[in-house]
Amino acid sequence: MRAPALSACILPLALGIAAAGFAAPKATAAHATAADRRSLADLIAASRPSDWRTPDPDNTLYLDLASGRVIIELAPGFAPLHVANIRTLVRERYFDGLSIERAQDNFVVQWGDPDGTRPLGSAAATLPAEFTRADGKDLAFVALPDRDGYAPQVGFAQQFPAARDPRRGQAWLTHCYGMVGVGRDNAPESGSGAELYVVIGQSPRQLDRNIALVGRVLSGMELLATLPRGTEALGFYAKPAQRTPILRVRLASEIPAAERSTLQVMRTDTALFRAVVDSRRNRRDDWYVVPAGHIDLCNIPIPTREAPAP
Amino acid sequence: MRAPALSACILPLALGIAAAGFAAPKATAAHATAADRRSLADLIAASRPSDWRTPDPDNTLYLDLASGRVIIELAPGFAPLHVANIRTLVRERYFDGLSIERAQDNFVVQWGDPDGTRPLGSAAATLPAEFTRADGKDLAFVALPDRDGYAPQVGFAQQFPAARDPRRGQAWLTHCYGMVGVGRDNAPESGSGAELYVVIGQSPRQLDRNIALVGRVLSGMELLATLPRGTEALGFYAKPAQRTPILRVRLASEIPAAERSTLQVMRTDTALFRAVVDSRRNRRDDWYVVPAGHIDLCNIPIPTREAPAP
Repeated sequence: MRAPALSACILPLALGIAAAGFAAPKATAAHATAADRRSLADLIAASRPSDWRTPDPDNTLYLDLASGRVIIELAPGFAPLHVANIRTLVRERYFDGLSIERAQDNFVVQWGDPDGTRPLGSAAATLPAEFTRADGKDLAFVALPDRDGYAPQVGFAQQFPAARDPRRGQAWLTHCYGMVGVGRDNAPESGSGAELYVVIGQSPRQLDRNIALVGRVLSGMELLATLPRGTEALGFYAKPAQRTPILRVRLASEIPAAERSTLQVMRTDTALFRAVVDSRRNRRDDWYVVPAGHIDLCNIPIPTREAPAP
Repeated sequence: MRAPALSACILPLALGIAAAGFAAPKATAAHATAADRRSLADLIAASRPSDWRTPDPDNTLYLDLASGRVIIELAPGFAPLHVANIRTLVRERYFDGLSIERAQDNFVVQWGDPDGTRPLGSAAATLPAEFTRADGKDLAFVALPDRDGYAPQVGFAQQFPAARDPRRGQAWLTHCYGMVGVGRDNAPESGSGAELYVVIGQSPRQLDRNIALVGRVLSGMELLATLPRGTEALGFYAKPAQRTPILRVRLASEIPAAERSTLQVMRTDTALFRAVVDSRRNRRDDWYVVPAGHIDLCNIPIPTREAPAP
């Protein structure tokens, strides 16, 4: 009457998972079929401690909602002034008690101060535009062989998905799923970090080089991506009661070491990671009829794990 | 203390909206800033009735959840056998009372019969693989000038996002946000349409040519994209109670004409649509510092509207 075992019938579609973006850490391990797991698990099993890194606690944000914790890694190498300002805002508890005010389907979720009444304290209200780095040529850059429509070259720099234009000497972070950026006004220097957004849909790469990206969600994306969409223009919520309160935002460095997340992130500048990318570029398990032979930068997962017991 | 008007400060980021994919119809009109609106609204204001089409009621599915209605347009031109089988399943009420059983972050939401107990009635249990069309060379194809990593050429065919390989003479639908496909087992011919999935994240284009795409969500994506993610492997829900019940699925043609949706979709084979794509490829409003000069197929919105009063 129906295809054999239903569970078998459903699983294969999910082979796409690991390529689908930045899975939550728990998902990275759990969301894989036998065939998929073998290849990725083999690679991970062959990993050495040096294939993993623990994000700097001073670059790690904990965004706490009633539904759980979102962990964000900041990218000071690409937006040093913005990251410093965000650290100031966090240390002065600017975000505590504010809310997620906007959720626009297939685009972004945004948080900050929709009523515009909270003072910024000692943080700057505007900052120089940090949309590109001018030293792209000298920056250590793990380039993908895969072509990209938005940039001459894409790959990873400082452990983040990035692009560069060797001719102009520029490098920049890319708007992949889970990337975090700073809302701004028309003036390029009008952002401060008091309004932050995260990409929850198809990568809006047209924003690259137009706005400051400051980091990436490492864990808890599902808490943001499932928020009810706002029904007002731009996905803002119609009523304040529909907003999602932010309980608190903390730097991991503000928390006692024993209470910090033990999340580790796979390094992107290793032979192991190159093998991971290739395994996603060419699916060699039985399910695939036609391996793509190509991977889009924003379809590359960066595996995470809990630190192994010492 | 802070950037000027906060609302102004937040709006510009949202200029990316229309490019971010398949916005719900309401959103298409509402989610635009002044600058963005001018250009898109000007184009829409200049549209003629022939720039719009009403989907064939026999190719239109209403998937009714307690939270609202999802409207799906089927693509019989690309998967005729699958679409015919889905019509049979719908007419025999196969889906009524089943549920959404899986929601995997940044990948897919899937519905069907997780317990595998419901008989398929007169529908086929397996179908020939309809992953590509062999007559790609002869198919009317609106090709984009923009390069793509996954296919020699991308654009629109029969009003759907599609790709083709002129050398092999093949054409196929592409896994963009909102596209609907048929789950299958390892055997390419093991799908039936009894398990359907919709893309809710970064386009998993590696699935192209590997599985049958059968349509696209025209409206109600936010109802699917916000479902809580399942915590089991592949995003399946741990407990049956966590599944989302499907109240009913109907073809629009089964409903009295007066009760059908009046949704219209912008044609993709017109000069108007070319202008829409170009306005998204090169953002000419003040907010953008660097227009991309490129657009990914899956970042192109296909505007919808309610039919104007006669």
